[in-house]
Amino acid sequence: MTPRLALLACTLALALPVLAADPPPYRSAQQILDASPAGDWRTPDSASTLYLELDAGRVVIELAPGFAPAHVDNIRTLAREGFWDGTSIYRSQDNFVVQFGDADADDPARAKPLGSAKTKLPAEFERASAGLRFDALPDTDGWAPQVGFADGFAAGRDPKTGKAWLAHCYGALGAGRNNDADSSIGAELYVVTGQSPRQLDRNITLVGRVVKGMELLSTIPRGPDPMGFYADPAQRTPIKAIRLASEVPEAERTALQLLRTDTQTFRDVVEARRNRRDDFYKRPAGHIDLCNVPLPVRAADK
Amino acid sequence: MTPRLALLACTLALALPVLAADPPPYRSAQQILDASPAGDWRTPDSASTLYLELDAGRVVIELAPGFAPAHVDNIRTLAREGFWDGTSIYRSQDNFVVQFGDADADDPARAKPLGSAKTKLPAEFERASAGLRFDALPDTDGWAPQVGFADGFAAGRDPKTGKAWLAHCYGALGAGRNNDADSSIGAELYVVTGQSPRQLDRNITLVGRVVKGMELLSTIPRGPDPMGFYADPAQRTPIKAIRLASEVPEAERTALQLLRTDTQTFRDVVEARRNRRDDFYKRPAGHIDLCNVPLPVRAADK
Repeated sequence: MTPRLALLACTLALALPVLAADPPPYRSAQQILDASPAGDWRTPDSASTLYLELDAGRVVIELAPGFAPAHVDNIRTLAREGFWDGTSIYRSQDNFVVQFGDADADDPARAKPLGSAKTKLPAEFERASAGLRFDALPDTDGWAPQVGFADGFAAGRDPKTGKAWLAHCYGALGAGRNNDADSSIGAELYVVTGQSPRQLDRNITLVGRVVKGMELLSTIPRGPDPMGFYADPAQRTPIKAIRLASEVPEAERTALQLLRTDTQTFRDVVEARRNRRDDFYKRPAGHIDLCNVPLPVRAADK
Repeated sequence: MTPRLALLACTLALALPVLAADPPPYRSAQQILDASPAGDWRTPDSASTLYLELDAGRVVIELAPGFAPAHVDNIRTLAREGFWDGTSIYRSQDNFVVQFGDADADDPARAKPLGSAKTKLPAEFERASAGLRFDALPDTDGWAPQVGFADGFAAGRDPKTGKAWLAHCYGALGAGRNNDADSSIGAELYVVTGQSPRQLDRNITLVGRVVKGMELLSTIPRGPDPMGFYADPAQRTPIKAIRLASEVPEAERTALQLLRTDTQTFRDVVEARRNRRDDFYKRPAGHIDLCNVPLPVRAADK
């Protein structure tokens, strides 16, 4: 018996340290989400939710009043007054953006009246990071000293200047402007449909992001004219309406929940994507880029 | 006069150091390209150029035999024997990839014969960096120790392992595989149409990149089934043919030139994009991401 017991003891001695160092079984992002507590999800504020209505369906946008309060306020006014109804998506540039609003905005003779919306706003390229919950990624970033998530948005932060700003990731919604920094008013908008153009960070006021329906924008045929514009109005994609969710009857709203980015569930999802340990991946990346992080959305009735 | 001269001298003394430090006048990427010498451009090898023919037009692909010689060799065989003629783009996943080839490849009863193509290849995730001209970017990257350009392709490099590999940027062409690293043969292919999924670097064999016609792939309606597949064959995008340019009559070829990435012109283009100093940009980024670098292409008759 003695040799047999000795062998067993030896096996245990070898096995225990390995067991202690074993990572927990890998769970995919979806498995983590499926097991998430209900409290990890939030319902977006209907007064900060826009519905962009196209013939192909509805694009749902979450606005970011915490970053661009003056622009969001103006966008609410424009939506309430039906400014965008009957306008169009008049630009689609491959691997960059779609842009929409009044295609004649630059022509004083044909521009659509702005109603009671303001015609001058301050640039809102960044805000004070004080008072902002910011869940930083440990991952390096070439564009910003720190990157992470604030109020569910991908963002950058600079501890030296004490500023934070939204990042131009896929789906980001920005306020088009002319050369002057303060020339945007939120009437002409764009959505990022390509590789994240982070060089625009802190150069344009970002006002929100698409949370549902990106594929309706990303598949729009690219415009044949320079920078993806359509000189021919017939080629533009009509906008039936842009409405605040709060102005739409409850029964017609799209009920969504967004994963809170200040939760362990979100951190676990990020790690599951940073280091994939399923059967397919042979080499976990050990890194994730801010704009590769998924921001999970689900139907609210789930 | 004395006070006036003194003031002038003072002004000069203040102004001269500023003048000395002034950068040369900013030229946009397009202005740099317009002034480039003819020798900075190369004509892609017709034996390494694929034409993917769709009803909507032609997608031009440059293969990378320097990185994936076995796969490229097999792809040449498949193209010569017309393997892809009558197949389809059977997957389009938003912000990720389109995938194409034989939709029935996994069904032995219905799979299309592979002709004289090989049915087993080594994984070609990386290659020795020795002997490879590699023009490194100075910019930091979270996915790889070094990034830059080799033979006109965006690539990563690790001085410690002495390896280099192609990067999953927008437009990259990869060989789909199952869970085994060496399960790809180049018959099922994908093209990146979203935010660069660099976590796939060194996990899949990349075989080339799209140099013209990306908008024909990026706008394909997203598949309704999981991961963007179309269960309904009627929704797939038919592939008329995939041919090597060298097998197509000269008059039917698309004559292109690609900017060499080992030139001062290319370095100047990168810097013009890294630090934009035109009237629009208020803050040059001081950084560029590997996958944000444009790889200029022009008609050869230019």
